[in-house]
Amino acid sequence: MSSVTNTGKLLGVGVGPGDPELMTLKAARALGQADVIAHFAKAGNASHSRTIAARHFSAGVTELPLLYPVTTELPKCSDGYRDAIRDFYDEAASTIAAHLSAGRVVAVICEGDPMFYGSYMHLHTRLASRFPTEIVAGVTGMSGCWSAAGLPIAQGDDVFTVLPATLPEDELARRLRDSAAAVVMKVGRHLPKLRRALETSGRLPRAVYVERGTMADAKMIPLATKPDDDAPYFAIVLVPGWEERP
Amino acid sequence: MSSVTNTGKLLGVGVGPGDPELMTLKAARALGQADVIAHFAKAGNASHSRTIAARHFSAGVTELPLLYPVTTELPKCSDGYRDAIRDFYDEAASTIAAHLSAGRVVAVICEGDPMFYGSYMHLHTRLASRFPTEIVAGVTGMSGCWSAAGLPIAQGDDVFTVLPATLPEDELARRLRDSAAAVVMKVGRHLPKLRRALETSGRLPRAVYVERGTMADAKMIPLATKPDDDAPYFAIVLVPGWEERP
Repeated sequence: MSSVTNTGKLLGVGVGPGDPELMTLKAARALGQADVIAHFAKAGNASHSRTIAARHFSAGVTELPLLYPVTTELPKCSDGYRDAIRDFYDEAASTIAAHLSAGRVVAVICEGDPMFYGSYMHLHTRLASRFPTEIVAGVTGMSGCWSAAGLPIAQGDDVFTVLPATLPEDELARRLRDSAAAVVMKVGRHLPKLRRALETSGRLPRAVYVERGTMADAKMIPLATKPDDDAPYFAIVLVPGWEERP
Repeated sequence: MSSVTNTGKLLGVGVGPGDPELMTLKAARALGQADVIAHFAKAGNASHSRTIAARHFSAGVTELPLLYPVTTELPKCSDGYRDAIRDFYDEAASTIAAHLSAGRVVAVICEGDPMFYGSYMHLHTRLASRFPTEIVAGVTGMSGCWSAAGLPIAQGDDVFTVLPATLPEDELARRLRDSAAAVVMKVGRHLPKLRRALETSGRLPRAVYVERGTMADAKMIPLATKPDDDAPYFAIVLVPGWEERP
């Protein structure tokens, strides 16, 4: 995929949940052949996806860091946040479009799976109708977590649900009661509320708290035995199904 | 991982959704080092997971085919089915336990992700408390499908649900109405019912039908335009969320 052809291509490349070995063969190959590799990060921080994938970048690659203008400084429902984020994605998409129009292969790398709650999706909706595009599926963060925990999550006819911890307590409780298996994301400061919702729904005894799931310093404990309510934003809670296991 | 040590190890290895390139680096390496590789198949059929992964087997590996005694010949709720399947997993686990006790590394390969609706889970529950065990997470079949379809599936605070098409029509409709994003699995003969549930819940216009999602002969069409209700058991329907996309 040299930069002298005139058919640019956009690649949305999942790099998996954190362990560099959990990247796919396809992702590793795609990164070695890309002319430009774009990665998201909070300004002033290293890009997690870059840390996972950098060993596969070719020597001459052009890197394109995409730095979020805001993350938690403004409320997500505010006009200010929405405008800043929309402008950021518009600008990133137009920078990438220029590379694609010049015939370059541009890989946008993302933790986990690109189409599952990923920032890449904002670029995809802006570019995929205009340029050849391919998605390289990745191992999701939640798969990385339940695998590291050795926790069978769902089986047979289980209903499985992914819930944001931002939901109101009664809605969390209702949905937890209504699903055989669940993963609750973005736990952070919502942990006290989530703990109450798990208790109300009878699911607390099965719930497992996971922090930095596929990192060397991962922390996994039954939530019922976790002595405090401290949790980072990216902590997740697993509620395994398969209650009738043999 | 030579067979002369006396610490056997069980590996549950996800080989991804079908495209051999969507295996992880870790899975490829683990298979090259395993003494024994076990794979599930329906008697008389090739093992799909073996087809995906065989290029990574070492020359001297011992293969252990695990052939389901029944699949669709008996109803899943019948005592006959339950007994046959339980005996099958008991026997498979004891064969694997003998290899592990002899100090061998045994990899059980599975399509998709081992802990997400996988047959491996039945061996895990029988063996993981007795032997060192490690799970290698894999790209799920559903990730493979929405990636191949180029379909952003869930974003932000979307509630995402996996539903078996076996649910009653009114329950399917209720749950589809109640989830921003959904994947319906095991479509097969349930497609007419699922179509009605999607219509009732107002989700039919967004639904995408996918057959053999990550294979060369994949078939993906908006369900509303699919002219018939023919569907294999493993077909899935994707209902993307992110309705407020910018």
